[in-house]
Amino acid sequence: MRILVTGGAGFVGSHLVRRLVGEGHTVLALDSLLTGSWENIDDLSDHPHVTRLHQDVVHPYELGALDRIYNLACPASPPRYQAHRVHTTLTSVLGTLHALTAGASCGARVLQASTSEVYGDPEVHPQREDYRGAVSSTGPRACYDEGKRCAETLCADFHRERGLDVRIVRIFNTYGPAMDPDDGRVVSNFVRQALSGKALTIYGDGTQTRSLCYVDDLIDGLIGAMERAQTPEPINLGNPAELTVRDIAEQILALTGGGRVVHLPLPADDPKRRRPDIARAHALFGFSPRVPLAEGLPRTIDYFRRRLAREASRGVAE
Amino acid sequence: MRILVTGGAGFVGSHLVRRLVGEGHTVLALDSLLTGSWENIDDLSDHPHVTRLHQDVVHPYELGALDRIYNLACPASPPRYQAHRVHTTLTSVLGTLHALTAGASCGARVLQASTSEVYGDPEVHPQREDYRGAVSSTGPRACYDEGKRCAETLCADFHRERGLDVRIVRIFNTYGPAMDPDDGRVVSNFVRQALSGKALTIYGDGTQTRSLCYVDDLIDGLIGAMERAQTPEPINLGNPAELTVRDIAEQILALTGGGRVVHLPLPADDPKRRRPDIARAHALFGFSPRVPLAEGLPRTIDYFRRRLAREASRGVAE
Repeated sequence: MRILVTGGAGFVGSHLVRRLVGEGHTVLALDSLLTGSWENIDDLSDHPHVTRLHQDVVHPYELGALDRIYNLACPASPPRYQAHRVHTTLTSVLGTLHALTAGASCGARVLQASTSEVYGDPEVHPQREDYRGAVSSTGPRACYDEGKRCAETLCADFHRERGLDVRIVRIFNTYGPAMDPDDGRVVSNFVRQALSGKALTIYGDGTQTRSLCYVDDLIDGLIGAMERAQTPEPINLGNPAELTVRDIAEQILALTGGGRVVHLPLPADDPKRRRPDIARAHALFGFSPRVPLAEGLPRTIDYFRRRLAREASRGVAE
Repeated sequence: MRILVTGGAGFVGSHLVRRLVGEGHTVLALDSLLTGSWENIDDLSDHPHVTRLHQDVVHPYELGALDRIYNLACPASPPRYQAHRVHTTLTSVLGTLHALTAGASCGARVLQASTSEVYGDPEVHPQREDYRGAVSSTGPRACYDEGKRCAETLCADFHRERGLDVRIVRIFNTYGPAMDPDDGRVVSNFVRQALSGKALTIYGDGTQTRSLCYVDDLIDGLIGAMERAQTPEPINLGNPAELTVRDIAEQILALTGGGRVVHLPLPADDPKRRRPDIARAHALFGFSPRVPLAEGLPRTIDYFRRRLAREASRGVAE
């Protein structure tokens, strides 16, 4: 198949491109490089079935006949998506519009990478797909949350109005190699701090929870949803194992050889708890994350070690 | 002042244009005429301070220096906004983006007409502005609700990122002359049915409530918010008097001389109850609706009588 991956140079996108190429497909990896980097797929730089396209999805594109479109393009961490808020919203809304338009023009199936952030700071746990969320439409995270909600709406309505074959997946916290060390999220913050010999920063008292999915499991979920889900309804993808931020800090300290934690105030609109109900994904295509934190964390720490060393040798790290 | 009113040929927009012109301002009334009609301001067709612009706000525009922009353009009733769902979402998102861009380019203050629909089918009553709502991002009303939520986000972020002076008002049910008789909403449905000698259609058992604001009161609120609110935070505008749909039917039957009601099933996602908490608007600029239903309904029925007679004489009504 000929497959477009927008955000193909990003954290999740780079893993997806590699998997799809490995399965024998021809892949167009499109990225604005605002938060992604071709370094994430530099092992594929001479691969005959991979094409790199430097393009911002807020602008329309024309790429000929495609079989599948994975629309992953969007800054996904608060410090990144809050750097240019209006642009973040337009990346979600117009980026999705352009992916859907491209899909409609050639009959390609389109998968939209939505997010657990559409649930905002949820009042119910775990979150099922029919939970409507608790999002502030004008708060500091709204540029991402509302942009992604509106993108889901466009997907649902391209299906209703034009019969487009769409999939919507809501991705919960994901970690693994190729993460942005500066994304400000819990695993990257902690690993980076631990490897630099700094104290691990816990916002609030550390009892807020995260459910962390290793990226290989997520890629299984993305491809499963695309090829076997057969529904335009949203599908949660994540690992329902719930860990406190304090637990995560302690595991990382144990793996990296010690250190300590410091506490800072909780930022506005930081979700206190988030955990996916993945019954729908399990029923539709047998989704079941397999990689435990004890296996995923060492691989991630390894990646960070190599990356920080590379940055240090270039003189860009501390 | 030189003032742009997008949606200036619509129900609320036409009243606003008339009021602003009456106050001595120069007004540009911009409308796509998809749901609005210049007939709504035909009394101003030769007015030297009114300019009509036929333009769809999904496309950018350039209108020179402006002092105020009221962004009212969007189909606002379910049968209208569901007729072209993707276009409705883009009207909210891109229409607001273009109004904000126009405002930023000349330093104009921008008021965004948001809606009580951002609360979805609310679980708390009355609705305060800090209630986050219960909206389905993929349901049949999402094209309007999520488009309007995302538009609020763009307003908040133009204020954050570019210091733009913005106002966001959330408009609850409004009625009065110039309503679209085919908008499918409770007052127009009932009045039209009563004047045609048909049974009044109540969806569900009629115990769901609506709070109805007469359009003159709403115009007071729009201008109050624009000129005196001094906050980018959302502000509810509506009449908190809560009436059951059954009550409204009975008042209309009494004013039009009788008839009966029939019951039909409640449509998906129809809000069961909605009532504004207007404490913020009252505190900021003394907002307090004055026109009771007993005064507003007869004026509205009068308008419908004249309009239906005009349509009949043209041979377009039943």
